[in-house]
Amino acid sequence: MDCTIRDGGLMNNWQFSDEFVRGVYQACVEGGIDYMEIGYLSSEKSFDPAIAGPWKFCKEKDLQRIFGTNDTSLKLSAMVDIGRIELDDIPPKSESVLDMIRVACYVHQIGKAISLAHHCMDKGYEVTINMMAVSKVNEVELDEALHDIAQSRVPIFYAVDSFGNMQVDSIQHLIRKYRKLLPDKEIGIHAHNNMQMAASNTIIAMLEGCTMLDATLLGLGRGAGNCPIEVLVAYLKNPNYRLLPLFQAIQNHVYPMHEKIHWGYHIPYLITGAMNEHPRRAMEWMDSDQRDDYVTFMRKMHDNEALE
Amino acid sequence: MDCTIRDGGLMNNWQFSDEFVRGVYQACVEGGIDYMEIGYLSSEKSFDPAIAGPWKFCKEKDLQRIFGTNDTSLKLSAMVDIGRIELDDIPPKSESVLDMIRVACYVHQIGKAISLAHHCMDKGYEVTINMMAVSKVNEVELDEALHDIAQSRVPIFYAVDSFGNMQVDSIQHLIRKYRKLLPDKEIGIHAHNNMQMAASNTIIAMLEGCTMLDATLLGLGRGAGNCPIEVLVAYLKNPNYRLLPLFQAIQNHVYPMHEKIHWGYHIPYLITGAMNEHPRRAMEWMDSDQRDDYVTFMRKMHDNEALE
Repeated sequence: MDCTIRDGGLMNNWQFSDEFVRGVYQACVEGGIDYMEIGYLSSEKSFDPAIAGPWKFCKEKDLQRIFGTNDTSLKLSAMVDIGRIELDDIPPKSESVLDMIRVACYVHQIGKAISLAHHCMDKGYEVTINMMAVSKVNEVELDEALHDIAQSRVPIFYAVDSFGNMQVDSIQHLIRKYRKLLPDKEIGIHAHNNMQMAASNTIIAMLEGCTMLDATLLGLGRGAGNCPIEVLVAYLKNPNYRLLPLFQAIQNHVYPMHEKIHWGYHIPYLITGAMNEHPRRAMEWMDSDQRDDYVTFMRKMHDNEALE
Repeated sequence: MDCTIRDGGLMNNWQFSDEFVRGVYQACVEGGIDYMEIGYLSSEKSFDPAIAGPWKFCKEKDLQRIFGTNDTSLKLSAMVDIGRIELDDIPPKSESVLDMIRVACYVHQIGKAISLAHHCMDKGYEVTINMMAVSKVNEVELDEALHDIAQSRVPIFYAVDSFGNMQVDSIQHLIRKYRKLLPDKEIGIHAHNNMQMAASNTIIAMLEGCTMLDATLLGLGRGAGNCPIEVLVAYLKNPNYRLLPLFQAIQNHVYPMHEKIHWGYHIPYLITGAMNEHPRRAMEWMDSDQRDDYVTFMRKMHDNEALE
């Protein structure tokens, strides 16, 4: 699944030009990608449309402007956050160009996530639950959440390493646990690159049986970014996927954004990842004039830790 | 082992200022790093000192200008290439500030490498053999080389993924083979980041029993670069190593080079890595005005492949 617009939008408030979004869509279609996640379904009561761009809301008129009736083999997805959407804002599948809705939640929201996921399934969508920040969840809470998921009708459950903290050993342990406790579900992986592990964690998760793999063009995504979809396709050597259309979109659209938006491996993101913290402070630091002063940022983070 | 100057020098012909080299040295000492590789021991008959900087030759007067008598716990290493050095150019250990010499070779040179390594051991140095481009070596040749190494006195043998082609499955297979066929040797790993696997391959190799781990500040090294030493130290959480001095050297010295030297993950390096080819054509492409035209580079590489 390509998440370039959805996760990349966390870096620019979804202020992508239509040309950019069409370029990513074309790359996904021509590259043989299975799913593209275009953004979030959100209520305008939760976010100001004067600040957040159209893909924070994914209104049907915006979707149709880009995708028409999406007469391709690429399926379209949007993400929903617990509490940021009214049930009535989600149209029935028959009235939407979307194919899939992914419900993002934290571990304490797992019950609400299952209710919302069932609601979306009943409206006709493919559905996943993506439980975020799993590197901060303790074993008892995680086992309880997996027990609840196992009891649900939700067919796909994601491991989301929101902080980019996980490594070969922890990702193997986690995916084996998911597979053992959810033998009838598909498992997904969504990795971040704070410790330069996004691509390898995604491949390791696949080797452990994950079948839904999130990635983005040139790794564009929050903070240190995600698994680059071109690395994944280069690794897979699966003739269903093609690299050249992905490179075309990277050189035309994604790489030129590099000077404005500081995603990818940078030391402040490494620091929050290694500390198993949300990347928010690193993102603020990267937006400041002090962005290249890593020593001061590390000292501040350790002072914060001492205060907590 | 920090290889910032030695491998990074492949990107700038070892034209580092003394201030830069001293900054890396200080970071290694204060960071608790075990070894620092400063460059190559080469004959001036093989390379022109008007083009290549001092760390292509590692003359004792240059070493002493930076390191004095190196009254620290950090050990110093230099690399030698087969055929680029005269035996008489290698001083006895008692006359050098170097502690270790690493012999780089291709698989067909393994006999010469063992002779040269024994010569260096007899002169009093710690010694390794680093067999490069292992991702291109077939099984019969590799087994023969490992048999020869097993019979030798050389105590440390390196897996070197020169092309940045290897992945979790291939690196595990390789290190298990090395460990099985060389039960009495230490094994080392030197990874490149073409497919964003350098850090994870290094950690996976360590989990398989590798004890010598090569890395560089901010991954500075040929083409896509190496395993970032700061990622490795952040992962290890070993109190012998300290991150802050590494970050200091990165912000003062290494990061500012980024605008002049295009190391790190870039699509042309991904292409050569995924094709299991030497990065040389990608480096030429990155030095040209067409550097951001990935589609043309990929087409050229595939045309070359069709011709070969």
